[in-house]
Amino acid sequence: MKKVGVAILGLGVVGGGTYKILTEHREFYRNTQNVDIEVVCVLEKDAARAEALGVPKEIVSANVFEVVSNPDVNVVVECLGGITEAKGYVLDALNVGKTVVTSNKELFCKYSHELERAAKRTNAGLYFEASCVGGVPIVRTLLDGVQSNKISSIQGIINGTTNYILTRMAKDGMHYEDALSEAKKLGYAEADPSADLDGFDAAYKLSILASLAFHTKVPFAKVFREGISNVSREDIANGNELGYTLKLLAVGKQSEHGVEVRVHPAFVKNSHPLAGVDGSFNAVYLTGDSVGEVMLYGKGAGEFPTGSAIVSDIIYAATHEGNRYSTFKNNASAEKDVKFVTDFESAYYLRLTVTDRAGALAKIAALFAKNNISIVELLQKSCDAESATVVLITHTTHEAAVKNAVSRINLCGVAKVDSVIRVL
Amino acid sequence: MKKVGVAILGLGVVGGGTYKILTEHREFYRNTQNVDIEVVCVLEKDAARAEALGVPKEIVSANVFEVVSNPDVNVVVECLGGITEAKGYVLDALNVGKTVVTSNKELFCKYSHELERAAKRTNAGLYFEASCVGGVPIVRTLLDGVQSNKISSIQGIINGTTNYILTRMAKDGMHYEDALSEAKKLGYAEADPSADLDGFDAAYKLSILASLAFHTKVPFAKVFREGISNVSREDIANGNELGYTLKLLAVGKQSEHGVEVRVHPAFVKNSHPLAGVDGSFNAVYLTGDSVGEVMLYGKGAGEFPTGSAIVSDIIYAATHEGNRYSTFKNNASAEKDVKFVTDFESAYYLRLTVTDRAGALAKIAALFAKNNISIVELLQKSCDAESATVVLITHTTHEAAVKNAVSRINLCGVAKVDSVIRVL
Repeated sequence: MKKVGVAILGLGVVGGGTYKILTEHREFYRNTQNVDIEVVCVLEKDAARAEALGVPKEIVSANVFEVVSNPDVNVVVECLGGITEAKGYVLDALNVGKTVVTSNKELFCKYSHELERAAKRTNAGLYFEASCVGGVPIVRTLLDGVQSNKISSIQGIINGTTNYILTRMAKDGMHYEDALSEAKKLGYAEADPSADLDGFDAAYKLSILASLAFHTKVPFAKVFREGISNVSREDIANGNELGYTLKLLAVGKQSEHGVEVRVHPAFVKNSHPLAGVDGSFNAVYLTGDSVGEVMLYGKGAGEFPTGSAIVSDIIYAATHEGNRYSTFKNNASAEKDVKFVTDFESAYYLRLTVTDRAGALAKIAALFAKNNISIVELLQKSCDAESATVVLITHTTHEAAVKNAVSRINLCGVAKVDSVIRVL
Repeated sequence: MKKVGVAILGLGVVGGGTYKILTEHREFYRNTQNVDIEVVCVLEKDAARAEALGVPKEIVSANVFEVVSNPDVNVVVECLGGITEAKGYVLDALNVGKTVVTSNKELFCKYSHELERAAKRTNAGLYFEASCVGGVPIVRTLLDGVQSNKISSIQGIINGTTNYILTRMAKDGMHYEDALSEAKKLGYAEADPSADLDGFDAAYKLSILASLAFHTKVPFAKVFREGISNVSREDIANGNELGYTLKLLAVGKQSEHGVEVRVHPAFVKNSHPLAGVDGSFNAVYLTGDSVGEVMLYGKGAGEFPTGSAIVSDIIYAATHEGNRYSTFKNNASAEKDVKFVTDFESAYYLRLTVTDRAGALAKIAALFAKNNISIVELLQKSCDAESATVVLITHTTHEAAVKNAVSRINLCGVAKVDSVIRVL
């Protein structure tokens, strides 16, 4: 039976979950996978944390060199997060030929090329399923399940914190601030939640997933990003009335115009499978030229779902030795001359406050027509004697045209655009 | 660049789709997967069929020996269906060390052990993603995505024909016979649709998926099977009123009591992700001890979705040479002493015709109580002066208790049970 020695760097939520899964399932993996996986050392400065998890003192170290150079270690699991320490440690491990499994989306998103070069040089494995949507095996699926397809689009709800907040606002009418503080209390949001709320977390993941799906490097800087902090209960309720659910959506598209990548709040029609992805669940919906539409749905994060992804990668590494280097298989040539689309097309939801109703609506209609924007649905919501709220949804159109129409409407003196939200 | 020579056995729907994908994507796979896949021969007796697909005459053969022994062939794709020819041909290929990719669920369900032994003997690859739910990469996910988990249950809508019929009945109020003939016209149902309608197709797939999920061989004969031919519009409408959708469900469970496998119509609560899986879409919903709940959703069948699965397997075989034998990794010992649960537990929907209402309801309630069956919901639907229709849903209970109560009710003289449908 093959023996695998594992080192875990960092016993936070994910590292701790990985430790628990590996120790509790050791016999199970011996029986079902024909591998004997042992945690042989752990990098953790906080001795109390290690003790709370029941990690034997003799395998805990605070010295990364000791851990990485340990001859019994075949696989190094990086669960530190951040860049500074993590990058150096991962490169140290790869440079001495140890396989690395990481849950660090920021690291893999920003430095995958450097890490891959190091892995190739020493024929080490490099796995990162856990970096993208913990419990959803989307990396494996893109690499080994739908790799026969030209993927034209991926759409995902790939951040658990924001999805929890938006679900609580939509289903229970909560205010943004209340939903956020509840999410913090429940451990769904971090003390400083800006990486989640402002869409950074989703953008890291989208950068990785779009790179895999489209067989090219999609740099983080190319991902358009807009968070959920301006989302209002009013817009969520209006969307609901029109049959839409608001989600923080990650969208990647590839067409003859180029690659388009963006993260922003978007209304999703309730009949679309993504609309029902609630709370801490996440999902990725992709379209391939042969397979058609495929959706993968599961928990986005958490010690065990993310730990599951890490351990699945460890087993994969152990049982696929002939294929250690499992990331981008595309020729480097495919990366040249990638165009990134910035004026993307979408349908739009607009909320306007209108004074002088009759005259305003005529002006607005004219401004839309001038910008080639046609309207699918319009809902007039009464306000008071002097002004009314109007909500409308447009056909698919260019973002630039919408921006132009919005600025003209705001200048026309009889209406003000309060919200613009993209519609999937 | 690695060269792969492929032989396709049978140019029916799936074989034809595979041929088209491989020929149209050859350059794409060279660029993205670093493999050059060429169809070097095809087994097809119908020359017109081959011609219609544009297959060069010189690579078409009617002689399987010629095809399998062709030294340029590395991978044999079996798309013949059925057992008689297919089994012999697949064994011929494996015996000479050729990797086999098959879409044949009946063959793999019934003879996987024999095929695996042959594959092991010659170190040939054996892949069967296409045998289970065409466009849904569930086999790869079970083997390489969630293999770190003890899977406690899989629930699936894994037959496209029945799902199309049930969707048309539920959404458009169609009669069973009308929906069936429409499905035939559209090519969703075969001329003799009994393998689909009676649940054989779903049971083959469930046998394969449960074997993978539970790390043991689940023989076809152990799968409880009930088809959709007795499903009525009335029950579908009643379920809808109570917030449930009727599906042909495949259920596999593993617990300390043993393994439970069954295919039958079942009501699914509308809030469950499986309830929204409509038309020709299929889905598998699984629960693992670490990952939690995961759902995979996609097209169940069709030339391109199933062809996509076959071609993904061919690429996997070509790029994972060190891991040619990709099926059951469990120790043979795990297969001993598997218990199969037959008196399974479920919630139940019952529809009854009741004469003498007051007296009947009291008797029915007493009979349920005697069998430890408690009722969650009861809906009285008026009929005429003499009789009424009563619809009820029970709490989870033993199937034997329900059967016992039903036979007692039918004997009591004042009520008749018209339908019994399990509830997920």
